[in-house]
Amino acid sequence: MSGVRDLLERFDPAIGTTLHERIARLYPICRSITGDGVRETFGILQEEIPIEIREVPTGTPVFDWTVPREWNVHDAWVKNPAGEKVIDFREHNLHLLNYSVPVHRKMPLSELKEHLFTLPKQPDLIPYRTSYYRESWGFCLSHRRLQELEEGEYEIFVDTTLAAGSLTYGECFLPGETDREVLISCHSCHPSLCNDNLSGIAVCSALAASLEGVARRYSYRFLFIPGTIGSITWLALNEAVAGRIAHGLVAANLGDPGKFHYKKSRRGNAEIDRAVLLALRGSEHGVEEFVPFGYDERQYCSPGFDLPVGSLTRTPYGRYPQYHTSADDLVFVRPEALAGSLRLYLEVVNVLESNRRYLNLNPKCEPQLGRRGLYRTIGGDDHGRERELALLWVLNLSDGRHDLLDIAERSGMPFAAIQDAVRSLQDAELLREETTV
Amino acid sequence: MSGVRDLLERFDPAIGTTLHERIARLYPICRSITGDGVRETFGILQEEIPIEIREVPTGTPVFDWTVPREWNVHDAWVKNPAGEKVIDFREHNLHLLNYSVPVHRKMPLSELKEHLFTLPKQPDLIPYRTSYYRESWGFCLSHRRLQELEEGEYEIFVDTTLAAGSLTYGECFLPGETDREVLISCHSCHPSLCNDNLSGIAVCSALAASLEGVARRYSYRFLFIPGTIGSITWLALNEAVAGRIAHGLVAANLGDPGKFHYKKSRRGNAEIDRAVLLALRGSEHGVEEFVPFGYDERQYCSPGFDLPVGSLTRTPYGRYPQYHTSADDLVFVRPEALAGSLRLYLEVVNVLESNRRYLNLNPKCEPQLGRRGLYRTIGGDDHGRERELALLWVLNLSDGRHDLLDIAERSGMPFAAIQDAVRSLQDAELLREETTV
Amino acid sequence: MSGVRDLLERFDPAIGTTLHERIARLYPICRSITGDGVRETFGILQEEIPIEIREVPTGTPVFDWTVPREWNVHDAWVKNPAGEKVIDFREHNLHLLNYSVPVHRKMPLSELKEHLFTLPKQPDLIPYRTSYYRESWGFCLSHRRLQELEEGEYEIFVDTTLAAGSLTYGECFLPGETDREVLISCHSCHPSLCNDNLSGIAVCSALAASLEGVARRYSYRFLFIPGTIGSITWLALNEAVAGRIAHGLVAANLGDPGKFHYKKSRRGNAEIDRAVLLALRGSEHGVEEFVPFGYDERQYCSPGFDLPVGSLTRTPYGRYPQYHTSADDLVFVRPEALAGSLRLYLEVVNVLESNRRYLNLNPKCEPQLGRRGLYRTIGGDDHGRERELALLWVLNLSDGRHDLLDIAERSGMPFAAIQDAVRSLQDAELLREETTV
Repeated sequence: MSGVRDLLERFDPAIGTTLHERIARLYPICRSITGDGVRETFGILQEEIPIEIREVPTGTPVFDWTVPREWNVHDAWVKNPAGEKVIDFREHNLHLLNYSVPVHRKMPLSELKEHLFTLPKQPDLIPYRTSYYRESWGFCLSHRRLQELEEGEYEIFVDTTLAAGSLTYGECFLPGETDREVLISCHSCHPSLCNDNLSGIAVCSALAASLEGVARRYSYRFLFIPGTIGSITWLALNEAVAGRIAHGLVAANLGDPGKFHYKKSRRGNAEIDRAVLLALRGSEHGVEEFVPFGYDERQYCSPGFDLPVGSLTRTPYGRYPQYHTSADDLVFVRPEALAGSLRLYLEVVNVLESNRRYLNLNPKCEPQLGRRGLYRTIGGDDHGRERELALLWVLNLSDGRHDLLDIAERSGMPFAAIQDAVRSLQDAELLREETTV
Repeated sequence: MSGVRDLLERFDPAIGTTLHERIARLYPICRSITGDGVRETFGILQEEIPIEIREVPTGTPVFDWTVPREWNVHDAWVKNPAGEKVIDFREHNLHLLNYSVPVHRKMPLSELKEHLFTLPKQPDLIPYRTSYYRESWGFCLSHRRLQELEEGEYEIFVDTTLAAGSLTYGECFLPGETDREVLISCHSCHPSLCNDNLSGIAVCSALAASLEGVARRYSYRFLFIPGTIGSITWLALNEAVAGRIAHGLVAANLGDPGKFHYKKSRRGNAEIDRAVLLALRGSEHGVEEFVPFGYDERQYCSPGFDLPVGSLTRTPYGRYPQYHTSADDLVFVRPEALAGSLRLYLEVVNVLESNRRYLNLNPKCEPQLGRRGLYRTIGGDDHGRERELALLWVLNLSDGRHDLLDIAERSGMPFAAIQDAVRSLQDAELLREETTV
Repeated sequence: MSGVRDLLERFDPAIGTTLHERIARLYPICRSITGDGVRETFGILQEEIPIEIREVPTGTPVFDWTVPREWNVHDAWVKNPAGEKVIDFREHNLHLLNYSVPVHRKMPLSELKEHLFTLPKQPDLIPYRTSYYRESWGFCLSHRRLQELEEGEYEIFVDTTLAAGSLTYGECFLPGETDREVLISCHSCHPSLCNDNLSGIAVCSALAASLEGVARRYSYRFLFIPGTIGSITWLALNEAVAGRIAHGLVAANLGDPGKFHYKKSRRGNAEIDRAVLLALRGSEHGVEEFVPFGYDERQYCSPGFDLPVGSLTRTPYGRYPQYHTSADDLVFVRPEALAGSLRLYLEVVNVLESNRRYLNLNPKCEPQLGRRGLYRTIGGDDHGRERELALLWVLNLSDGRHDLLDIAERSGMPFAAIQDAVRSLQDAELLREETTV
């Protein structure tokens, strides 16, 4: 059966277009941390991957938190004194403050303004705002539109329900040879925002679909969850599973044209951190140490769990002007960026899958590679030099203490070259896997 | 009862003037490693702080050394062939080679010159010279005055006593909650030199006076001692006490207008070293590794003690042209520099006093700060962000392994912000001090 | 009896001329990994040092390898259609592909060309090529001469023997106070190439001759061996001895005018690595981490041995255009470069010989150096400051944990100054050697 390496070798960047199309299909749906929009989203993902839809009832205690009431929107608008809809949820779901409670009343503009959110410095964009944990209602709109509103009596209509129900998340589990797991987590709670985080949803589901078709050493668990409350809920209900997580990544912001960026796990030098840095080697990228704010890595890396989970993105949240605005749209995310992100995740998975310790079976001096056809025969000739160097590195460092990641780091050679050298040396019976770790 | 943090909050830079006035009062006194000048100095300090004056008899063996004879000066001058005093101790006490033995004779200028010390490259300044451990006599004068001396017979009169007596030092001990001590040591053996080290004496006595009035976790021991022989004597007579020194600083050169400079303890990464670097963060400063020469840190950091004692100064000794000359005077030391030095010492003490380990009582995922009023309620709003970051840092790193110094270092946040976060989290019962260190 | 330090003090750079003369004498001999040329070479070295000539029979198994047949050359040439010798081994021994099997036939130029090696980018130089482990024959020549060859039938005559015999290597062992050894290894398998590696042979034999005449703490083992197969053979036959190797260097490329270059041992921070870096301090040089290719360090540092052996050269192999060509000749290697290399090796050996731990016998505070004549008596005077600093460094760090290499590294002082301070302090009974390591 083929493996992750094969996925890389036959990787076709044209998949970027497929990913972009999936984002386009999910874009109009109004998602939040609960509600039918999330169910509809996971239903579409089920067409591609074996994702299970979990429902956690409102009121369930999850560590210090409680699963909130479920929120659904039927309609929401604001009419001006002339009775014209000047703000309409159906026009763009960002217009409604996420988790707005129902309201139907009239009020003068001056009073309404306390419930309106704009971005004066980006006057054409609608901001994204939420009020999950304080009962409130409000509308978001472009600053330009706000300035056009005339004084007078406005009619406000927010037809939402905030009631007992459940928190919905998606979980796709792909069992592997061992029950040690790789966790890939992405937040699925944002409404019409493409890079944050339909890009993460699209890349993760494509990654799951790819891995489903190949042999896997690790088990893989993909979580599609609402930010913060989702990871807290999952961890609270799956403490035993958390203990099996060997490596993890939080996936988001994977469709913008920016360079890659890695935020390390709290441990700072976990295998996942080193695997990502190896996969990023040679391409321009940013790296930063763990900080206890950001996405769900803050929960996975809370001191009571301290899981080896980093966050691998393109431009990090908050560092691009389109962030949390209506400009984070289908134009902002690019097919080629999505394809590159998927490929990078496959590269990381390839390192994790292949990273083992080997034992040089001929540890005293070099073996005679020449008589095994693994070495140049005319001294002074330089063909095939790279392949030989990889063989020598693997032989020299396969002392039971170094794994392939160590060898790739210390040698500076491509991981694929190290993998190839391992295969050649195993075929020549000069190397065996060290299984007594 | 208020603590060190309160001292910082109500710190008034006008104290610099008070410190400068104290220096002005101590300036005319002729100090040495023994003698009445030191007793007079400590007598003045007693007006402000509970300093005890210790007398160690001449001849007392102190490790490899012996407490020397006591030296006192009554008068000293040189008269030229015309009978005019051309060098006069009463005019400036630097004129007399410190520890000169008595002499009263006449000699030609050529012979006298072997006993005269000048600074040809700084022709207007009187140098400071000593001869503690070899019996000698001599005079120091400006090179310009030396050049004016005419040939002829000179009368030399050195009316000193060098006799059995004692070595005098001052010790101010402020007991705290624990018997673990912070040692602050300054040399008090120099005659009329302001930066080196009346500045250290003034800052240390003001620091002691301040700390006397607040609650203290550590006990504090201030030593006012002659350089080298003083610290050796103290260590020889207080070996048991030395074992209780948890942190220490040697204080000197604290009144010049230069930037701060820290010389690390021999250990190099002791808590005192990290506390000082934290206090210096954000201000221009110099740092250097321990070297076994300098001030009394060379004794505290001798291998048989290896105490965690660094040296925190402004411009280090020997690196300013006024050093060990008559130009190290009341103009050279500045009120604002003295106040800044005192404040910095308080900042360091604040870190030491507050640096503890805490335990996050809700270690699995973040606690819900919002319902405790510790978090913004509208997502996307950026007010109060700094305070929240400090809360998150303290929660994330309070796993029993990190103390507040670790958290301040890793987060890059101000120590005061970390302290405030601790207080808030303790109030919310989300944090408790880890006492089983 | 004098020691290595004395060799340094009386070192005369004029020895460079002697070394160059020895290279000139060895230059015409055709060496290979076996054969009479190597025996003749060692015979000449025997005039200077007690080198033993070892013979290991063809067919001896040495780890994964087998000692090859012995190769000797009687004559070799190529005649053009006109019967003129156009390539002649007697003119330059690089002309013959090393380890060519016998052949005597005629063939057209087109067929002959498959056996000819040139350097098109260095058209005037003869390359150096070998075929040790695949039976072949060939000639090396300048590209210019190749281009002058006319079409037609050529006569090829290679009169070599490749037959059972032995592998010859030279071993010079100088016993010391302990049986722990310093290994100095150089390859002796190259024909007429001066920098690679008659320079190594010359420097090593001069070093052995020098060390023979002085007291030695370590035993010294100099190996003159064919590259790769020689070190493998020696290690296979001397596994017990290998366990006594405390430090080692592979010596090569020591006569070119380039700066020094050190390639660290696989361990990366072995005492030999630090000793070499200390000896190189202050001179321009290059340093690189271990890589598992290069010279015989790849065998000494194979994982089954992992000996602390680095490689100390001038310009490393392959990084100068004369490398492995006829331009690596008597003009390329310089007397002054050879002398400088010998001196550097002596510096390294001096550090190794002297590097011990000492105990400060007065560890609590500084001893009173002044009454022992080891310190200035007038404070403020700066003469003899360097000597005092070295005394203070040695006293402060001689706590049983630091050796002289540590002290030289941390203080930044010259190793000779540290050595002198040790001597003074031992004379003053303030220091003794720590023997319970």
